[in-house]
Amino acid sequence: MSFDVVFEPSGRRGRIESGQTILAAALRLGLEIQATCGQQHTCGKCRVTVREGFFEKYGIESRLEHAAPPDTVESGLIDRDATPADRLSCCTEITGDVVVFVPEESRADQQVVRKSARAIRVTIDPAVRKYTVDLPRPSLIDACGDFERLAAALRRSYGLDDITIDIDVLRALSAVLRAADWRVTVSVWMNREVILVEPGLVESCYGLAVDIGTTTVVGFLCDLRSGRVVATTSTLNPQVVYGEDVLSRLTYARTNPDGLERLRRCILEGLNGIIAGVAKDARIAPREILETVIVGNTVMHHLFLGIRPDEVGLSPYPPAVQRAIDLKGRESGLDMLASGNVHVLPLQAGFVGADSVAVLLAEHPYAYDYVTLIIDIGTNGELILGNRERLLSCSCATGPAFEGASVKFGMRAAPGAIEKVNIDPITREVQWKAIGDRSWHRKPHAAGGARGICGSGIIDAVAEMYRAGVLERSGAFHQGLATPRLRRGADGKLEFVLAWASETAVATDIAVTADDVRAVQLAKGAMYAGAKLMLERLGIERPDKIVLAGAFGSFMDKTKAMSLGMFPDCDLRNVHSVGNAAGDGARMALLSAPKRREAEEMARRVEYVELSAESGFQRAFARAMHLPHMVDGFPHLRKYLGARPPDPVPKQRAAF
Amino acid sequence: MSFDVVFEPSGRRGRIESGQTILAAALRLGLEIQATCGQQHTCGKCRVTVREGFFEKYGIESRLEHAAPPDTVESGLIDRDATPADRLSCCTEITGDVVVFVPEESRADQQVVRKSARAIRVTIDPAVRKYTVDLPRPSLIDACGDFERLAAALRRSYGLDDITIDIDVLRALSAVLRAADWRVTVSVWMNREVILVEPGLVESCYGLAVDIGTTTVVGFLCDLRSGRVVATTSTLNPQVVYGEDVLSRLTYARTNPDGLERLRRCILEGLNGIIAGVAKDARIAPREILETVIVGNTVMHHLFLGIRPDEVGLSPYPPAVQRAIDLKGRESGLDMLASGNVHVLPLQAGFVGADSVAVLLAEHPYAYDYVTLIIDIGTNGELILGNRERLLSCSCATGPAFEGASVKFGMRAAPGAIEKVNIDPITREVQWKAIGDRSWHRKPHAAGGARGICGSGIIDAVAEMYRAGVLERSGAFHQGLATPRLRRGADGKLEFVLAWASETAVATDIAVTADDVRAVQLAKGAMYAGAKLMLERLGIERPDKIVLAGAFGSFMDKTKAMSLGMFPDCDLRNVHSVGNAAGDGARMALLSAPKRREAEEMARRVEYVELSAESGFQRAFARAMHLPHMVDGFPHLRKYLGARPPDPVPKQRAAF
Repeated sequence: MSFDVVFEPSGRRGRIESGQTILAAALRLGLEIQATCGQQHTCGKCRVTVREGFFEKYGIESRLEHAAPPDTVESGLIDRDATPADRLSCCTEITGDVVVFVPEESRADQQVVRKSARAIRVTIDPAVRKYTVDLPRPSLIDACGDFERLAAALRRSYGLDDITIDIDVLRALSAVLRAADWRVTVSVWMNREVILVEPGLVESCYGLAVDIGTTTVVGFLCDLRSGRVVATTSTLNPQVVYGEDVLSRLTYARTNPDGLERLRRCILEGLNGIIAGVAKDARIAPREILETVIVGNTVMHHLFLGIRPDEVGLSPYPPAVQRAIDLKGRESGLDMLASGNVHVLPLQAGFVGADSVAVLLAEHPYAYDYVTLIIDIGTNGELILGNRERLLSCSCATGPAFEGASVKFGMRAAPGAIEKVNIDPITREVQWKAIGDRSWHRKPHAAGGARGICGSGIIDAVAEMYRAGVLERSGAFHQGLATPRLRRGADGKLEFVLAWASETAVATDIAVTADDVRAVQLAKGAMYAGAKLMLERLGIERPDKIVLAGAFGSFMDKTKAMSLGMFPDCDLRNVHSVGNAAGDGARMALLSAPKRREAEEMARRVEYVELSAESGFQRAFARAMHLPHMVDGFPHLRKYLGARPPDPVPKQRAAF
Repeated sequence: MSFDVVFEPSGRRGRIESGQTILAAALRLGLEIQATCGQQHTCGKCRVTVREGFFEKYGIESRLEHAAPPDTVESGLIDRDATPADRLSCCTEITGDVVVFVPEESRADQQVVRKSARAIRVTIDPAVRKYTVDLPRPSLIDACGDFERLAAALRRSYGLDDITIDIDVLRALSAVLRAADWRVTVSVWMNREVILVEPGLVESCYGLAVDIGTTTVVGFLCDLRSGRVVATTSTLNPQVVYGEDVLSRLTYARTNPDGLERLRRCILEGLNGIIAGVAKDARIAPREILETVIVGNTVMHHLFLGIRPDEVGLSPYPPAVQRAIDLKGRESGLDMLASGNVHVLPLQAGFVGADSVAVLLAEHPYAYDYVTLIIDIGTNGELILGNRERLLSCSCATGPAFEGASVKFGMRAAPGAIEKVNIDPITREVQWKAIGDRSWHRKPHAAGGARGICGSGIIDAVAEMYRAGVLERSGAFHQGLATPRLRRGADGKLEFVLAWASETAVATDIAVTADDVRAVQLAKGAMYAGAKLMLERLGIERPDKIVLAGAFGSFMDKTKAMSLGMFPDCDLRNVHSVGNAAGDGARMALLSAPKRREAEEMARRVEYVELSAESGFQRAFARAMHLPHMVDGFPHLRKYLGARPPDPVPKQRAAF
């Protein structure tokens, strides 16, 4: 049996088999509903409303009874203010024709991504090169094999030795040579394997660099001769519907019989969508992409390659493989030249993935004497510290605070998310700015308004709350403040209101709770402690330079981040946001085969510090929970924090 | 529309779509009818009889009108003695229910093949080796990738460096290591790539060597540790139904849109049947075959690899590729370990294929000072001449005489084929022996009897006709002989009766015609001329040793073959039949990776002599048409030809 289902306000509709949930139906119809927990029935974020009545424009009679009644899990999860029409889409089975309204806060909109490619410095030396050759025609006294004829010409004209040929290209070779009247352009991979033979003179030579993020996938189509980025496209990682973070996807892959294959097909669809997009922009066919370089964290890496990632989620988190992988386009599932190569950058260790190696390549701290600390804040915080002498890395379990998942009003960096906050240290009045806003918010918005707080917004908010004295160094609220914004919430716990209901699009006050502050402290504390332990290993107090990688780093206010104690003190002029450095590194590996060797060597050189195995970690972590730190000084924050009112004298010390 | 079709005497039946020919219907129902010309409507060998009446046991009303009337092609091809019920199955479309009788001479029975493997001498050093390793378990301070853990153990225990891993094996690696509790046996190809990881200690290690002949395919399952042949199976090349010789198959591949793919699938089915057979005999699963070595002539090579062989059939006959090819089991279509390797031996040139290289490997004339002439008589005659100093090869267009195709009563080496002939030089009375007979035929057979003459039989017959003086040195019949066996046939031309109708199973006299003798002369003349030109290049008169390779050579009487002048004079003690030397060479390449390099080097060292480009060829060919040769002496035949009566004084010289 099947039913008509319509989603509002998008108007997407289709027939859905009975037994499907509303969320499953939405996915089927290409609609994205937030499902932060990966359908584990724990986050309660996928709320929708089932509408009642006959809808003439759809020709549908929608009834509440057309959705199976809520079970105890759903009843326990959904807000107390919910009406019987409000349902969690992951729990609700469709049993008849329905019209479903998806409220704004449940929609998984396209995230804001910095798409444009940074200029990178690399000597162009790609893995694929094109060579045009004129072949002598075969004759009775020169009737060697067609391939041998081609190989001899490549040797004669270009000094290429020991060439092999892809079996598919070989299958077509004789016909192509003759159709081309013996003048062909040969694409050779690593000066070793013929991967394409085209008639006549062909100069264009394209490759693709892809950064598979947990949330966002970015692809750069590059001209392999000039290095120029010809087209860029990014897309939400379609796996998001199976869970927003890597752990949800690990769980999905482990607990569903065809979970791995489904996640793999899902990312392949996304990647092939990117390929279709860049190919269209550049007016080429997908098969003109001769080479692809892939980077991504360990879980994305495994899922793309079709490797079961179970072990990556279990201590001691060993990946299936660390070294770089080369596989054929046809083996990868990518819609590119079937005989072309896909190069997957190596992993460093456990959670420190190929994206981190790409960042390493892009920033090459190993080329300098001064010590660089690279912080890549994605789903996890990955840190690299070092210089020419030595490289260390670690992975910090930052938790989902920076992605808005464990924050009460947290949301992804989508329009309506508060991203900037200023708090007056005297009045404790708040100015904020949401993504999509042109200016700071000072008075109630005419329309729209805030929907929640994104990751960089929560950093801004907590940093400003600390600077304005709303928060004490321990992270506790300063209870005696005379402002209506500091109040007790419905659960009786203290919270600080950033935006009043009248200023928002969600008809409720948007506040930062004590739990939210604690989540930020846990996240930043883990990162700081990781950096601290690595600095101690190197025997130095602070890095000479700090690099904030990742889209998240770009949106973050570096002064405020430092004032939270996300990373050690450093001259703020030497703290840089570099945007999608993983994408930069991927492009470098695409444009330069020697850079691939460099990546492999450096990935092996990095010493991975497993924080949970370090005896000093718990102590360092506890001290780093303070704002900005219990004992470490931050001389470079003197200006920013200068006006901060002193904390009240504690009645008793916090129990750290 | 479809019709009931029954074939007699086998009783095979089925429903066939209208528009199919009788031959196509037979193929569909798994019945083999001789189609020597590859359905080119030229050989007229596929004659069948459409029966009339109601057949109660089949429940079928069969009528002559249920077969479309003959067109001019068919009418021109079919014997004059044919009744309206006699039809050529390749031309006759089925238009209603029919019962079709397939006469014995039209049936394509299983050929007699020498299956057993010869002992070969080779140092066992296979491409695949198994290594058992115990891995340390991962821990927080040793959490490298699973593959890196495996690679480190292989390096530590066996000194293997720079190991890679097949992508499919990598996909399963983590699970296998854990299921095996970290004790695994690793199959490594060329000490380079992991192609299989099995739990625990596994010792068995199998490989397959295959010789794809135009007519017969032979497979040897070998234990890669001992080199022992564990099982052998041979089968008719299933492509035979598309034509018996390589030219018919080239034509089929060229003229049918999906001809190549059909021929490829056909040989793959045959090969997978062989795999199923040897696997069953050895009680292993097909996927336990870790490596396969393939040899075959150039056309078989191309068809197996899915390479269009069009150019191989057109002057100057260049193959698509000469060097050895390695491809994955899964790319080859073979039912073996998907990640295992298929090694296809190199081709020498044009028609001198990988089978010839395998013969070269098996006989290794390049290891000796004395000069060896290797003659491999298959569909073509391939000759190799040389020693340590120099190697020459050539391919002789022998035509189909030795396969019985251009001979009036020619048939394949199947039961009932006359294979041995003796003729009394005084009485010109004939003794003969057919395949399947226990003794020489001296009086009319009680049952059965001869059905035709096979390739070695025609050599015997013509040699004996020459020795008995029935044939003159020019190949002309000695007209004045007083024997009823020498007579004029229906076409008015002279023929010599070997078996009277009463002695045969085909109810007609089996005779050797003047055209048959001419076909043999053309074939042997081409081979002799090829050998002669190569000898001249080396500056020698005769080889020190002659090796007759191929199943055909095994059945041939070497004295009679020499007396025909199939090859130059040589001490008969140094003329050896070596059977399936191509299969021997394939096994050597399977058991020894260094032998593959040797094959590649030697294939490149052989100088290919393109006979049609040699200025002296026509003259040498004309002289070699004589029996045994116009001018060359055959001192070693003195004993055999001693009793030969002299030729009559010629009235005029033959026009050579």
